[in-house]
Amino acid sequence: MSRVEQVRALTFDVFGTVVDWYGSIVAEGAALSRATGTAVDWPAFALAWRAGYQPAMQRVRTGEVGWTKLDDLHRQILDGLLVQFGITGLDEATVAHLNRVWHRLLPWPDSIGGLGRLRGRFIVAALSNGNMALLVNMARRAGLPWDCILSAELMRRYKPDPAVYTGAAELLGLAPEQVMMVAAHPLDLLAAAEVGMRTAYVPRPLEYGPSGATETTSFAADLIATDLHELADRLLGV
Amino acid sequence: MSRVEQVRALTFDVFGTVVDWYGSIVAEGAALSRATGTAVDWPAFALAWRAGYQPAMQRVRTGEVGWTKLDDLHRQILDGLLVQFGITGLDEATVAHLNRVWHRLLPWPDSIGGLGRLRGRFIVAALSNGNMALLVNMARRAGLPWDCILSAELMRRYKPDPAVYTGAAELLGLAPEQVMMVAAHPLDLLAAAEVGMRTAYVPRPLEYGPSGATETTSFAADLIATDLHELADRLLGV
Repeated sequence: MSRVEQVRALTFDVFGTVVDWYGSIVAEGAALSRATGTAVDWPAFALAWRAGYQPAMQRVRTGEVGWTKLDDLHRQILDGLLVQFGITGLDEATVAHLNRVWHRLLPWPDSIGGLGRLRGRFIVAALSNGNMALLVNMARRAGLPWDCILSAELMRRYKPDPAVYTGAAELLGLAPEQVMMVAAHPLDLLAAAEVGMRTAYVPRPLEYGPSGATETTSFAADLIATDLHELADRLLGV
Repeated sequence: MSRVEQVRALTFDVFGTVVDWYGSIVAEGAALSRATGTAVDWPAFALAWRAGYQPAMQRVRTGEVGWTKLDDLHRQILDGLLVQFGITGLDEATVAHLNRVWHRLLPWPDSIGGLGRLRGRFIVAALSNGNMALLVNMARRAGLPWDCILSAELMRRYKPDPAVYTGAAELLGLAPEQVMMVAAHPLDLLAAAEVGMRTAYVPRPLEYGPSGATETTSFAADLIATDLHELADRLLGV
């Protein structure tokens, strides 16, 4: 039996793998600039917001701060960026709305179609560091056809903590080897593989924008696919 | 503002409210009898299985036993019923399959259509004592269009423990008064109301079979509807 044959469920990283956070934030930022007359380097802003993500989660991982959901980490980072980028004059409702841009991220062009095809054979679940409300709102708005939404919030641990992956398999009623983690990020896949899950690497060269670097790795995933349609082709044997 | 106007999400009890456990178990049991030649009073069997549900959860609630997911409680009850009903000669695979009939329960005729209409306006979530895997498998098989699946398993407490209801609202990023519990069971609604949630009572006169009694109550729900289409009519103002 091949390593992939026993897979019953696919768990997907979301930010960067299924949705385009960079493009979505730049587009909403540009609209905000037009509406308010505030000039901002939104590509730099988007990259800086995302760059604050790992250090913020790290403070939770180390126990420096207690469990904090991603919406609140995003807001802490955003408050610093507004100062750093000299953005003033936004009222609280506008800042709160901007913070929820992460609830409104748009899928890559292949995401909805690919997930829909994969769902015919496999349980298709989100497994993201985004909090549940963020992921629910995103799925409704973008039309992401999840069978279920699993969040690091359920385990109160952030990926790549192994408890997130083992907890997801347990909630799905499956052994780790029956679950395949799909991600654009080698560290996410490495952590999944370490608890026995199968892995599919879907590089997203545009994740950090047109001039951004793709994450590279020497980690050997069970499958590599250029997008979710190719992943469906591979897993459905088309 | 009416008590219902601020509702953003509907959380649904599942067993009896959205799916017909009695009819589904009787139908699968009859098929099993035909296949194995074993005569069983399946209506009595279905009622006895469900009757074991509250006492089994009560042992978890009181701490007499640690957290046990519903699949495992169902199996403990089933093992007793096989003896009680004199059902012998089933191999382990057949018993395990029978236990998972709860993953294969069929919806009431109005459930899929009603949920689909309600989903246009509200977040539509399961909130069941069924474990996540059970609810995911059921939703895939029956085509239940949940935005997300929430289970008592996430809180490791069984309804009507208030932590299940407050935990669900928190995961949805909403205040309790922005969430409406929908159930055929007054005690479920009463517990939801006690933490501030809104309530819709959908009596299901056939839940316990053609000759079964409907649960009755003096509890005043915010809405009463005969099925999920009428609930959609009321909430969507049609």
